[in-house]
Amino acid sequence: MTIKIYGYIRSPYVMAVGLTVYEKDQDFELLMMDMKSPEYRSNFNPFGMVPSYQDEDTTLFESKAIMRYVATKFADQGTPLLGSTIVEQALCNQWLEVHSHNLVSPLVETAMALIQNPPQPDVLKPALEKLNSVLDIYDARLSASKYLAGDSYTLADVTHTPFFHILNAITVDETQKCITSRPHLHAWIQDISSRPAWKKLIANPEIKDYNFRQGVKK
Amino acid sequence: MTIKIYGYIRSPYVMAVGLTVYEKDQDFELLMMDMKSPEYRSNFNPFGMVPSYQDEDTTLFESKAIMRYVATKFADQGTPLLGSTIVEQALCNQWLEVHSHNLVSPLVETAMALIQNPPQPDVLKPALEKLNSVLDIYDARLSASKYLAGDSYTLADVTHTPFFHILNAITVDETQKCITSRPHLHAWIQDISSRPAWKKLIANPEIKDYNFRQGVKK
Ligand SMILES: N[C@@H](CCC(=O)N[C@@H](CS)C(=O)NCC(=O)O)C(=O)O
Ligand SMILES: N[C@@H](CCC(=O)N[C@@H](CS)C(=O)NCC(=O)O)C(=O)O
Repeated sequence: MTIKIYGYIRSPYVMAVGLTVYEKDQDFELLMMDMKSPEYRSNFNPFGMVPSYQDEDTTLFESKAIMRYVATKFADQGTPLLGSTIVEQALCNQWLEVHSHNLVSPLVETAMALIQNPPQPDVLKPALEKLNSVLDIYDARLSASKYLAGDSYTLADVTHTPFFHILNAITVDETQKCITSRPHLHAWIQDISSRPAWKKLIANPEIKDYNFRQGVKK
Repeated sequence: MTIKIYGYIRSPYVMAVGLTVYEKDQDFELLMMDMKSPEYRSNFNPFGMVPSYQDEDTTLFESKAIMRYVATKFADQGTPLLGSTIVEQALCNQWLEVHSHNLVSPLVETAMALIQNPPQPDVLKPALEKLNSVLDIYDARLSASKYLAGDSYTLADVTHTPFFHILNAITVDETQKCITSRPHLHAWIQDISSRPAWKKLIANPEIKDYNFRQGVKK
């Protein structure tokens, strides 16, 4: 059975799952269902969110749980994504948590403020300040190791790739500096964004032809 | 080297790490440091939060990352906590994510509203509504399996134990019904709260002698 992913691919959480599947040299079918329908809730995700995942063995929701499952199930194929030592594995898990608890909220707030029309500097400014202080911590981490968990590319890097892609797609000069003024962060984003699996994912017309700034098809 | 946990044990995140260590038949030393100090931030957690963890091999932060590390490092000792099949492991991870993304916020909001003096029904009511709808999903899950991930007790159960303990410690008749009106949820909370490792943890005077409702020592 082909892997089925439920959701729209321009969601960064859905992208993170798709990227994991591609890094493991697997393929997936993308399906959409009304995520608020009783059918979706009872068969896939009782919280009515995307992504959900289905293969011959299980159905699952929550992107990071799906990513860990795919990385474990296809451990011997494609890129190893779980860290190569028990400590690297722990640091991979640590940075997956940091993504959830420290990065997403200021990044999404900044992104939402950036797409407001007319611009509202009093919303953007505090969001950006928060984001900048978190990005300082990332830059410091990435000055000590090539990837978030250490020498190896792992799920911790995977989960961040779509979020920085979307931030980059909607950013303006002022916010571009968040990234470019931090050399280690900047180099890491360029590195993780140049991987073949990621290039393959964003060649999908639903991502390539989407204007994230205006929330419409190009 | 003994395991060192930095933090105050009445934090539910610190408790979850402590419980994991006890379930693995290990011991820990609890240490406190000013979590906003540059020293704590640079040696333990750049975000200035607790818990942090230290042993002879690594330092870590983020409770769920620490819990996974301890469960993996001491895989052959104490209670297995990672799930006994790849699917159970995936469901353990899924419910760890549900805890973070769906349970904590309405539970903490409800708890905060409950300790307000004088009571503010307009704050409590929406928090409780949200919590109730999430607890329905837990009750449905726990009608299908004994533990969150399946037949085995896992980290998914561990992480919830202190949160329901604190809710229970500050609850009033009205909110007690959140639990008691849901038979599967209720039975599960009684089960996970009666484990020897948990009893050992809450025998700690800093938990036993703490009035969670008033935020003071009894
Ligand atoms: N913690 C979830 C977050 C998923 C999420 O936020 N999905 C959004 C799309 S980007 C969604 O389904 N939103 C619909 C809603 O909130 O009702 C995960 O990692 O899978
Ligand atoms: N995601 C973190 C959350 C930890 C957390 O919220 N810790 C609280 C204590 S319960 C804290 O350190 N608060 C201090 C602060 O927010 O400055 C984890 O799971 O370890």
